[in-house]
Amino acid sequence: MLPWQILRMGKDNIHEEITSFESHPSKYKHWKLKLDGETATLSMDVQEDGGLRAADYVLKQNSYDLGVDIELHDAIERLRFEHPEVKVLIVTSLKDRIFCAGANIFMLGSSSHPFKVNFCKYTNETRLGLEDASQCSGLKSLAALNGTAAGGGYELALACDEILLIDDGNSAVSLPEVPLLGVLPGTGGLTRVVDKRKVRRDQADFFSTTAEGIKGKRAVEWRLVDQVVPRSKFPQVVAERAKALAAQSDRPSGVKGIVLDPIGPDYKYVTLKLQPAQRLAELTMKGPDAAPPASPDALKCGDWAIRAFRELDDALLRLRINHLDVGTILLKTQGDAKQVLAWDAWVHANRAHWGVRETLHLMKRVLKRLDVTAKTLYAIVEPGSCFAGSLAELALAADRSYMLDDANQPVSIELGALNAGSLPMPNGLSRLETRMLATPGRVKEILAHKGPFNPEEALAAGLVTFTPDELDWDDEIRVAIEERASISPDALTGMEANLRFAGPETMETKIFGRLTAWQNWIFQRPNAVGEKGALTLYGQAGVRPHFDMRRT
Amino acid sequence: MLPWQILRMGKDNIHEEITSFESHPSKYKHWKLKLDGETATLSMDVQEDGGLRAADYVLKQNSYDLGVDIELHDAIERLRFEHPEVKVLIVTSLKDRIFCAGANIFMLGSSSHPFKVNFCKYTNETRLGLEDASQCSGLKSLAALNGTAAGGGYELALACDEILLIDDGNSAVSLPEVPLLGVLPGTGGLTRVVDKRKVRRDQADFFSTTAEGIKGKRAVEWRLVDQVVPRSKFPQVVAERAKALAAQSDRPSGVKGIVLDPIGPDYKYVTLKLQPAQRLAELTMKGPDAAPPASPDALKCGDWAIRAFRELDDALLRLRINHLDVGTILLKTQGDAKQVLAWDAWVHANRAHWGVRETLHLMKRVLKRLDVTAKTLYAIVEPGSCFAGSLAELALAADRSYMLDDANQPVSIELGALNAGSLPMPNGLSRLETRMLATPGRVKEILAHKGPFNPEEALAAGLVTFTPDELDWDDEIRVAIEERASISPDALTGMEANLRFAGPETMETKIFGRLTAWQNWIFQRPNAVGEKGALTLYGQAGVRPHFDMRRT
Repeated sequence: MLPWQILRMGKDNIHEEITSFESHPSKYKHWKLKLDGETATLSMDVQEDGGLRAADYVLKQNSYDLGVDIELHDAIERLRFEHPEVKVLIVTSLKDRIFCAGANIFMLGSSSHPFKVNFCKYTNETRLGLEDASQCSGLKSLAALNGTAAGGGYELALACDEILLIDDGNSAVSLPEVPLLGVLPGTGGLTRVVDKRKVRRDQADFFSTTAEGIKGKRAVEWRLVDQVVPRSKFPQVVAERAKALAAQSDRPSGVKGIVLDPIGPDYKYVTLKLQPAQRLAELTMKGPDAAPPASPDALKCGDWAIRAFRELDDALLRLRINHLDVGTILLKTQGDAKQVLAWDAWVHANRAHWGVRETLHLMKRVLKRLDVTAKTLYAIVEPGSCFAGSLAELALAADRSYMLDDANQPVSIELGALNAGSLPMPNGLSRLETRMLATPGRVKEILAHKGPFNPEEALAAGLVTFTPDELDWDDEIRVAIEERASISPDALTGMEANLRFAGPETMETKIFGRLTAWQNWIFQRPNAVGEKGALTLYGQAGVRPHFDMRRT
Repeated sequence: MLPWQILRMGKDNIHEEITSFESHPSKYKHWKLKLDGETATLSMDVQEDGGLRAADYVLKQNSYDLGVDIELHDAIERLRFEHPEVKVLIVTSLKDRIFCAGANIFMLGSSSHPFKVNFCKYTNETRLGLEDASQCSGLKSLAALNGTAAGGGYELALACDEILLIDDGNSAVSLPEVPLLGVLPGTGGLTRVVDKRKVRRDQADFFSTTAEGIKGKRAVEWRLVDQVVPRSKFPQVVAERAKALAAQSDRPSGVKGIVLDPIGPDYKYVTLKLQPAQRLAELTMKGPDAAPPASPDALKCGDWAIRAFRELDDALLRLRINHLDVGTILLKTQGDAKQVLAWDAWVHANRAHWGVRETLHLMKRVLKRLDVTAKTLYAIVEPGSCFAGSLAELALAADRSYMLDDANQPVSIELGALNAGSLPMPNGLSRLETRMLATPGRVKEILAHKGPFNPEEALAAGLVTFTPDELDWDDEIRVAIEERASISPDALTGMEANLRFAGPETMETKIFGRLTAWQNWIFQRPNAVGEKGALTLYGQAGVRPHFDMRRT
């Protein structure tokens, strides 16, 4: 094997590379975050020339690019950790008569196919995060549409608990992607319209093909928004509805938040090494180097469970967007299994504490980000590893796992308090349940196993795929890596997306499975992205797209 | 509006046009159907030079094209209607050491993108039909793999109730599409492996990336097959397992089947008219012209419920494969609603009778074929129509429906015995339930409504989308047609696939939603179909595909 290279040596995506996925309210270009007791207001005010590739596009009318969404993601995460007193988030705009025009079309039109796909995935994760904040952490959200919400703008509203639309005779909600751009709404719009808001499918059909959208009374009757409010009463009704939503929250009062420091350029618990020639990354997560704090109130952002999973999140985003050349990730762990299990037990025991709850759901979200990462995941269970508890989820999330079976170098896997459903996959099941669909009764037995599983036990329990001995180990892993690298990356992406999520479907799996797959198809089609495609030609006065009219 | 043209004027698909979707055992080129009491054996023996486009490809090693699958579909339908005494179907091969090599690669490589997509859809429907025969009609199925089952060959086995694999040291089951061809198994393989047979996802990953497949004991341990059987005992064990499966069947003995006559070139109950300039088809279903038979034993294939739905099936297949230019279908009905409801009531009352049961499930399957047809469906409810009972399902299946509201020309919609769950969609819900997801309690109320719904009532009940009056009628429909025709066909296909199936997911919706969408994406990618793509280059000695290695 060639020597490993340090992080960020894959340079095939320089044009679209993102140097940082972090932000801070003090640095926001596109949002204003206002805190007022139990209410936070996040107002969109996109800086037109503030795009990530400002030479390629201008962010008019509160349209957004990935940079805008990184700030939105940051704001939601900070409200969860830093501002536990906030019970309701109002999402609105500072622009007159426009809430948000959605993803910037010129940005999409000038992006590579992989970037478009990754952009949609990230924005989908952000919106699912907003819903997760409401469902799991009592941070309710209200879309206060002070103007038209088009495309991704309306999709952002759909991710909120409630939608108020100003009734000014002009402002509408719309999904104009299909009629105007020849693509789908890319951030869960179609799924949320029929599955979350339960808009009738024929009305959803009319709505999704009507570029100007729907406003006023019909928008309410069709369940597209919850209420339309005259301009004069808008601030008052927004405040009333925010108060009503806050009343549903179980977030605490009078406690101090956990400040999220920057992860910075250097990780503490995650190591990411690349081997470009093999299109391989090695991602190692270290276990805790200290016991959990004595009291949940003492939990800090530098503590293992928060810091390690934030680093994993950052590493996954870098791998996805900056390292398209990487096809396979070797997932490794390093440290003391007992320490991991002690942390997990502490998180589980204290999960009623708001901060521990946030930590648990952070871990869950990051592991979900791993589940939907379009790279092959091989877990390598070798001496010195600590695939225990929450870190055992890495092995269960992997497409395959290899565990060394060598009496002279004993390795083990161990389950703990968080493996029994606290860290569900997008399909709503635990990774163990998903793995045991054929024998659901085994889940309980496996969880009841005391202590570590040695290789033989782990294989018998179905926790790992293969347990080569020391003679076969190197060769077997080498062959697995080489064979994978020889296969079409597209076929692997499609295959993994189908095999990873057996069992029940949720809105989340629908969005990442069905909706995304159709969108990816359309993003390849000449009718959208060809020379005369609708996405390519958008905004060129007097030029109409030319379609191949064969229905497929 | 221009005058309508007769069926089959759309000539954009001459090369791949299918002149008939009908067949008969006496005409089979590729299968032998043997009947022996309660056991039928369908043996694959594909004629190498018997492909539909014989100049383009040779059907070696029991590989198949659409023509082979049309015969398979015909055989399954005939076993259901003509041979009610058959309780178990053995699917095997007459070739030595090869069961079936799957869809012919040279056929796929030389097919247009729309044809590939439609080919996969049809073969998926055929395999789902095999499962439907087992689940709904007691026709059990046994895959007797007397040799290697690769790709679509193994996928055919996966659709059977049970899989026996010969243990000859050589024969394996495999899904080599991902490693060899850079595409997905196209007929539900990935979904059935993890969701039907519940193969563990990591084992499914290894299996689906291992071109040579898996044989012997491991194939059983991994749940890929139910049993491996030495060559010497193979016929005996096949017979034993067939007998055991037959014992699970509730099919009758000593009754006479319903012979399925050819539909022939002329439909009796379906009219299909095309207007190529508008890319429009008008599909009219006529209601019954006679009452149902006095006794279920007197049911014949010329009777309305069988004949009309078989014609609809044929018309849908023609529209899909031969008329790619058609983007929108206007669904119309004509006749007496009372006669439709009388037929429905009769079918419902006599559904315990084997032949009536087959008729009901035929109606169900054809309506499902409509649900997954990638064309816009507008139901036009106008004077003289009979959108009642099973024909009201056409309106409920439509993407939108327009009902004339004119006191001088009263029209109505009426529900009946079959609208309450007897004709489920692929998502397992009735079309009415899917429509009423926001207000599930309304389903019962609507079903309890006595007599017809006039336009006002139908609109209030949510049964139709719009009820223009006589002044607006022509314009509103014209605009709806014209606007639809101006939109990218790809975006419409993706949108409809997402809006039609709200609510729960089933293996069927997973196959037509997630799996198909990913496959369609891959079928567009240069890594599969480009000049140096894996599908393009397959079989060219010494030439290896070239992949764009960016993971997307």
